[in-house]
Amino acid sequence: MAHSHTMIGGNGRESYSKNSTYQRALLEATKEKIDEAVSMKLDLGIASSHFNVADFGCSTGPNTFVAVRNIIDAVEHKFRRQTQQNPKEIDETNRNNPKEIEFQVFFNDHSNNDFNTLFKTLPPPTTREYFAVGVPGSFYSRVLPRNNLHLGHCSYSLHWLSQVPENVTEFNKDSIHCTGFVKEVTEAYLGQFKIDFGSFLDARAQELVSGGLLMLLGSCLPDGVQMSETMKGKIIDCAGSCLGDMAKSGLIEREKVESFNMPIYFAQESEFKQVIEKNGGFTIEKMERVSHENEEFPSDARFLRDSYRAAFGGVAEASFGGDMVDKMMDLFEEKVHEFIDKPTKAGMQFFVLLRRN
Amino acid sequence: MAHSHTMIGGNGRESYSKNSTYQRALLEATKEKIDEAVSMKLDLGIASSHFNVADFGCSTGPNTFVAVRNIIDAVEHKFRRQTQQNPKEIDETNRNNPKEIEFQVFFNDHSNNDFNTLFKTLPPPTTREYFAVGVPGSFYSRVLPRNNLHLGHCSYSLHWLSQVPENVTEFNKDSIHCTGFVKEVTEAYLGQFKIDFGSFLDARAQELVSGGLLMLLGSCLPDGVQMSETMKGKIIDCAGSCLGDMAKSGLIEREKVESFNMPIYFAQESEFKQVIEKNGGFTIEKMERVSHENEEFPSDARFLRDSYRAAFGGVAEASFGGDMVDKMMDLFEEKVHEFIDKPTKAGMQFFVLLRRN
Repeated sequence: MAHSHTMIGGNGRESYSKNSTYQRALLEATKEKIDEAVSMKLDLGIASSHFNVADFGCSTGPNTFVAVRNIIDAVEHKFRRQTQQNPKEIDETNRNNPKEIEFQVFFNDHSNNDFNTLFKTLPPPTTREYFAVGVPGSFYSRVLPRNNLHLGHCSYSLHWLSQVPENVTEFNKDSIHCTGFVKEVTEAYLGQFKIDFGSFLDARAQELVSGGLLMLLGSCLPDGVQMSETMKGKIIDCAGSCLGDMAKSGLIEREKVESFNMPIYFAQESEFKQVIEKNGGFTIEKMERVSHENEEFPSDARFLRDSYRAAFGGVAEASFGGDMVDKMMDLFEEKVHEFIDKPTKAGMQFFVLLRRN
Repeated sequence: MAHSHTMIGGNGRESYSKNSTYQRALLEATKEKIDEAVSMKLDLGIASSHFNVADFGCSTGPNTFVAVRNIIDAVEHKFRRQTQQNPKEIDETNRNNPKEIEFQVFFNDHSNNDFNTLFKTLPPPTTREYFAVGVPGSFYSRVLPRNNLHLGHCSYSLHWLSQVPENVTEFNKDSIHCTGFVKEVTEAYLGQFKIDFGSFLDARAQELVSGGLLMLLGSCLPDGVQMSETMKGKIIDCAGSCLGDMAKSGLIEREKVESFNMPIYFAQESEFKQVIEKNGGFTIEKMERVSHENEEFPSDARFLRDSYRAAFGGVAEASFGGDMVDKMMDLFEEKVHEFIDKPTKAGMQFFVLLRRN
């Protein structure tokens, strides 16, 4: 199993860049939360002449550009309100003028992420109010120098584990993820999640300055809800069922399908909280649900096919090859309504605000 | 004319990555100079817990990794000698322990540079002693925040102008670069060089901290030597002559060949110096020739073909297309000895050390 999972690169029909409108809608819905978090919880005194922002797990854009824009707007807004000055007023006669604040944004993802597309689609320098840099490397380890980051952001990435948990295959032949209904499987996935999210927090605790903020946007399960009871879970179950059909009809070896598991885990709210508390480097300032008009996926089969392929297709391709995944997605489009037309449990979108102690 | 010129990307037979051994040999030859420069002229007091290095015009590697390694070795060496401590000794009980120094390296090139190849070929994190980030954007403008860079490096990039000087075409129909023999052409190229190198220094003066070092490695002409009298000049003349032959035989329109000029200018030593002095932000600590065993190109026609194609082929491709450039390079390989077997003037490799005032 590959240990680094990236979204489909480039700008083409199947790319993440073209098939992430759902995530974008959620980002827009959190703009207000970001504004409020910065306004209430950010101490501008932690930064002097420059303010460093990082997006961990940025993929190829454009969602990361929306998130970063929301963050910078919020910080500038606070700066203006607090100092009654424009942060971009530069006094050329004094290089260290504290009036002036410059933003640098660190776009982080795996080194096999398509950074070329990210860089080519950056807002042009004339309209972009920050210096952009790309940071290759897994966010489960350090990627930035110690004590130099003012605000970190991570959206829809922390459910990607660094690997499929060991020994999960023997208990999970009929499913491709953690449905939540088999004890051994849930324990294995939760164990891996604790290791990975713990490493994430350890690394960020070193990178953030004291008082720095960390914003985590993503999916958590309300306590007691199982993954297979949610819309997302049913969609992944549908993909697994398609693979099963392909094994039955002899297109893929049964053994290969049975040993395939996805390196994703959506933690329950309390599990998420426990890892943060155990780390000890952060204060939980906020942990709340995000609701917006399209709280759940729209149910258009073509839309679901494209979204699933862009986000999860890469992992399946690594195991089965592109042609097989194309066939699987054809089946997926036919079958998906059987899965999602049953009642689902909602409320999975969370916004978590942490402050570095 | 495109305004951003990058080396041939990827890792294939024609890539810059595979055809830059000559530049690498020169980099190795400057290791000692870098060591000496850091040892004599770097004040470690300019950095606290982290030390920021940038390579401007890094291309795809691996040369940039060699340069960066030489720089970091030199800084660590000085640190150890001065403090009798290992810069990597980290005291986990004190996050701001001044004993600890961490390096961050900013790899800069145009946003259409092949950063994916750069990131995939980075030394692995276990052997790499720095945090790596990529910085997309022309180095003729600001690419990093103000007052935050400790050491900048730029090798074999400053002869790439931001554009072919305006109006040069009417005076330069028979050549594809500034040979040095036509007054109007030389003036136009020199004018553009002054603008571009001036902008480079303005930007770096803002990015570097006071006391920060800027190392420029590249080609200058000794005063009075014309470009067409040097090995490099003769090689470019050969490429121009091939294009002329192709126009004669009807493969490319004559008009297209006559209006083609390369956006490169190798300044004379005194011209280079004048721009630095006019900028006023830097003290010239050193400006000296680099000599090494292979001071001039080896004269193997195949080697020259590959080196020329990797470094300059991209510009020609943008005007004539890949197929035509392939044909041109076949001709080039046949003809190059007619040009380079004549006597040439040597001594073009310079190492310049500037200190931010």
